Amino acid sequence: MAPIPNPRVVFAKPVPQGAWPIVGEHLVYDGTPTIDLDTVPLNGGFLTKALYLSPEPYIRERMRDEHIASYSSPMIAGAPMVSACILKVLRSEKEGFKAGDLLYGMSHWELYTVQPYMEARRKWNQADWPAWTANIDDIGNPNQVPDPNGAFPLYKYCSVAGAPGMTAYASFKKYADAKKGETIFVSAGASAVGSMVIQLAKLSGMKVIASAGSDSKVEYMRSLGCDVPFNYKTTSYKEILPKHGPIDVYYDNVGAEALDAALENMARFGRLIICGQVAEYNTAPEDRYGIKNSSMMYKLCLSMYGFLTPFIAADYAAKFYEDVPKMVVEGQIKSEERIYEGLESAPEAFVEMLRGGWDVAGGKVVVSLVNQ
Amino acid sequence: MAPIPNPRVVFAKPVPQGAWPIVGEHLVYDGTPTIDLDTVPLNGGFLTKALYLSPEPYIRERMRDEHIASYSSPMIAGAPMVSACILKVLRSEKEGFKAGDLLYGMSHWELYTVQPYMEARRKWNQADWPAWTANIDDIGNPNQVPDPNGAFPLYKYCSVAGAPGMTAYASFKKYADAKKGETIFVSAGASAVGSMVIQLAKLSGMKVIASAGSDSKVEYMRSLGCDVPFNYKTTSYKEILPKHGPIDVYYDNVGAEALDAALENMARFGRLIICGQVAEYNTAPEDRYGIKNSSMMYKLCLSMYGFLTPFIAADYAAKFYEDVPKMVVEGQIKSEERIYEGLESAPEAFVEMLRGGWDVAGGKVVVSLVNQ
Repeated sequence: MAPIPNPRVVFAKPVPQGAWPIVGEHLVYDGTPTIDLDTVPLNGGFLTKALYLSPEPYIRERMRDEHIASYSSPMIAGAPMVSACILKVLRSEKEGFKAGDLLYGMSHWELYTVQPYMEARRKWNQADWPAWTANIDDIGNPNQVPDPNGAFPLYKYCSVAGAPGMTAYASFKKYADAKKGETIFVSAGASAVGSMVIQLAKLSGMKVIASAGSDSKVEYMRSLGCDVPFNYKTTSYKEILPKHGPIDVYYDNVGAEALDAALENMARFGRLIICGQVAEYNTAPEDRYGIKNSSMMYKLCLSMYGFLTPFIAADYAAKFYEDVPKMVVEGQIKSEERIYEGLESAPEAFVEMLRGGWDVAGGKVVVSLVNQ
Repeated sequence: MAPIPNPRVVFAKPVPQGAWPIVGEHLVYDGTPTIDLDTVPLNGGFLTKALYLSPEPYIRERMRDEHIASYSSPMIAGAPMVSACILKVLRSEKEGFKAGDLLYGMSHWELYTVQPYMEARRKWNQADWPAWTANIDDIGNPNQVPDPNGAFPLYKYCSVAGAPGMTAYASFKKYADAKKGETIFVSAGASAVGSMVIQLAKLSGMKVIASAGSDSKVEYMRSLGCDVPFNYKTTSYKEILPKHGPIDVYYDNVGAEALDAALENMARFGRLIICGQVAEYNTAPEDRYGIKNSSMMYKLCLSMYGFLTPFIAADYAAKFYEDVPKMVVEGQIKSEERIYEGLESAPEAFVEMLRGGWDVAGGKVVVSLVNQ
């Protein structure tokens, strides 16, 4: 067979602090590479086709200049973008992997890849990096996932049945200490993580307040069972929270003003779970919002827990993969996905996901390569 | 016996938010009341003489206008100040209390008091107050303390062997998860609580960094075993912490800039214990320092615990009263106190304590009425 196109999306150059990534500048589609699927050497590995890519907010932090210290390993400029992906095995020289297998884990943003992917993988020596910098390439090696056989769409492994679902599930189970009748506030409640938290909270018998940035997202949150969904762009945190609080659990996906308002409206002995702070992923350090209500920590005897999913998932993974796909099939847990068609749409999908700006329903952004 | 003077210090009127209490305006010495110790009716209670008063930072919050909601019950304007005190029983009609007994607990700032003190005690109905407002008058009823018989000065029950010592002890045991070789940073390390935390940390085999506001306090912290004591007024947090960190545990008595700098210099999986934030007790809400490093909560997988001593002390009280007085006698735990002589000095002692501004050694401020 002759070589065929193997398009990719390259992380072309670092995004300055405080700036937004720009399509065509930082994320560049390149349709020129080719691959011969029959003859490409596997070197003991296996060849995959990417079916779905999963743009997620944490990736923004990896798109920095590599000299800026942070918690994640920076991606390699000039190499393909990396994220969780759903892959299908085409050929294999590796035991345990055979043609037709479905995998979920970290991979290149390119159509076909010889695994383990190498081009965007750093030769990692922890001693060269701050102790708190984690090598993201090391986590989430592609693992087998069962074929849902039509019981739910395969791409839900990039959503409620994958990393975002696991993030919500593990952190809620570990930190929320949810009690029936308590009140939770979830920011970015229409996001992949937020929408799962809303549903876990309802299953625990909690009253749920949740914020998002458009009226259609408000309706989406309501459809998930949220008791008090609101649009923070038209109704302020300071108006809603005193009225419907106090809050026993705050699940933070946003940071900044949302976190500050939550602190002011917690109940005594409340718990705050800090999952992410998407409001400031594109903000320079000096321009960040300053939290003024930290004194509520002692005044209200609060506990606040920050986490990164890879460090807490292990204890919950077995139960998650046992329970959640079943709950999805049975309709106990719902999720929506916003599908972008084709690899060429991936840069746009990523930036739109970060901006959260489309005025349609919420849900997890997924890029589909199924038809390529 | 004829009536004798029974001087008092009155909480004359609320202190505005963002302002400092002023001697003679908010705290007013009144030498005119009298009492007949032989004939004053006890009504089934008991008569005490105050030996020592214990001005402490949390009292500032109680000196507000009672219409401003907060975690502590506001004191009653016009009634005596209330704090932890060491008392001696003179006469008693109550079982379990006899003349000569020594007590430690909440009482009026006056020389002689019929217990339970009533004038500054609110008729408390929790339903009239926000759920998170605790009635401070209800905690710390005067309890018997053993006479140290000269093994240590009695006033240490207002210091390392009393509420400040217990605050440090219970919170450190409950939240620090201290491991040998780890690093702790203690702000206000020369304070009553901070100096105890330094010593508990050293006994746990930790490296201790601690800040205070004068060079003599730096020397005091060094004498307690602190490895890296520094004067934050002449050496910035941002200079010391990156050099001597990262920090596994941060013990916060200060808030504001100290908390923000600590967040930026934590180690992964670090713990932050929020005991108090004295930097902002006299700051209006809108003028508070804004914390910009809350994202370190998830980036470093941090846990932050706020607490109020009455809610955590019970589990640690027995062990505290068994261990700490003994450790004080044996010199394993040291403390310094700054004694103000006479009730008339109490207003000044309180304001000085809040300002932490004297340029002598640190230590707990105590007002002695022993010679009155």
